[in-house]
Amino acid sequence: MRIGELSRKTGVPVPTIKYYVREGLLPPGELTSPNQANYGEAHERRLHLIRALLDVGGMKVADIADVLAAVDDPARPLHKVLGAAADRLGAGHTERDDTESAAAQAIVTDLIARRGWRTHTSNPAAADLSKALAALVRLGHGAFVEVLDDYADAAERVARADLAYVDRRAAVDDMVESVVIGTVLGEAVFSALRRLAHVDASAKLYGTDGPPEGRAR
Amino acid sequence: MRIGELSRKTGVPVPTIKYYVREGLLPPGELTSPNQANYGEAHERRLHLIRALLDVGGMKVADIADVLAAVDDPARPLHKVLGAAADRLGAGHTERDDTESAAAQAIVTDLIARRGWRTHTSNPAAADLSKALAALVRLGHGAFVEVLDDYADAAERVARADLAYVDRRAAVDDMVESVVIGTVLGEAVFSALRRLAHVDASAKLYGTDGPPEGRAR
Repeated sequence: MRIGELSRKTGVPVPTIKYYVREGLLPPGELTSPNQANYGEAHERRLHLIRALLDVGGMKVADIADVLAAVDDPARPLHKVLGAAADRLGAGHTERDDTESAAAQAIVTDLIARRGWRTHTSNPAAADLSKALAALVRLGHGAFVEVLDDYADAAERVARADLAYVDRRAAVDDMVESVVIGTVLGEAVFSALRRLAHVDASAKLYGTDGPPEGRAR
Repeated sequence: MRIGELSRKTGVPVPTIKYYVREGLLPPGELTSPNQANYGEAHERRLHLIRALLDVGGMKVADIADVLAAVDDPARPLHKVLGAAADRLGAGHTERDDTESAAAQAIVTDLIARRGWRTHTSNPAAADLSKALAALVRLGHGAFVEVLDDYADAAERVARADLAYVDRRAAVDDMVESVVIGTVLGEAVFSALRRLAHVDASAKLYGTDGPPEGRAR
């Protein structure tokens, strides 16, 4: 199809499509003449993926390029691609070197051991977790660790559902892409569900108008 | 304390502290002389909160200003502040008007009814959820709805833990702030835990080296 039709089908403006090609997110179309290219279903599908990572996943164009490169690399093992996608969701900032950070790292190491998780503390997610916990401690919310296992139980449930879903699709050849989609979009799905569940839990605990007057502060 | 000591205690550079004051994120210090201000523990604590929302929550300065304004408004009911904080985590883009979006919105409406959640579809989180589901459908992952209830179960568990934690702290007068912290930092905590659990679930399903050769794609 021509770029105009590709634009109509995906809702992505032609100049934006050309930008994605320049940035290496989208492979160029097959040239049918010096100034005319032909695009196929693969381009249409890739555009939907780019928009999803961009609009729903909130990822940056540069990060999407990295993740798509991993998706397009047949030699890349599944968990490496999963890591590449997951790392893009991470805070990515360097950790502070203070007592709160040290205490948080110890909590994370202990949690991973206690849950028997087959991962190690060098995982970027472990650093993101201890960073979040250190911030909570600095804010006087060190007691938040009391609910850490409730969080871990829920995270295990979601992860099992994700992997079971991906495994059911293992026959089709888009498994790696499925993992990227599940990691990034699944994050958005859970975030929205958690916020909806908050409203419900708050309504059950305080009534639909929130906590009684005077308790709001 | 002087601004220099405040900077040392929080690890936030003096020019950055002045920037936060200009942007209205941090109340100005008490002037002790025309060109010297005195800062207290409230400033130190607020700086920790700003850095947490910025570095861990990945929020923008403008959005943090909105959320802190809600935190500082005693008339603001708890669930409104929770909403203000939660909305900042949302995709925030406008929804597309196509068949996938319509189908996704129906799925969300059905889910909320099925779970008996005391919330309604006008909640921004509901829009974010249907947006993520529509993107999944466009990518041929409509079957993802099969795991939606696993996600919802996990979200309910996390939300109950969050509210129970906040409720235990209801006596202290920083309940609203606690909700904001729990909403934003709790999001970061769960995201990291989910990624760690992914590695473990993947290891259990495929072995630590990922899926068998040839199944990676």
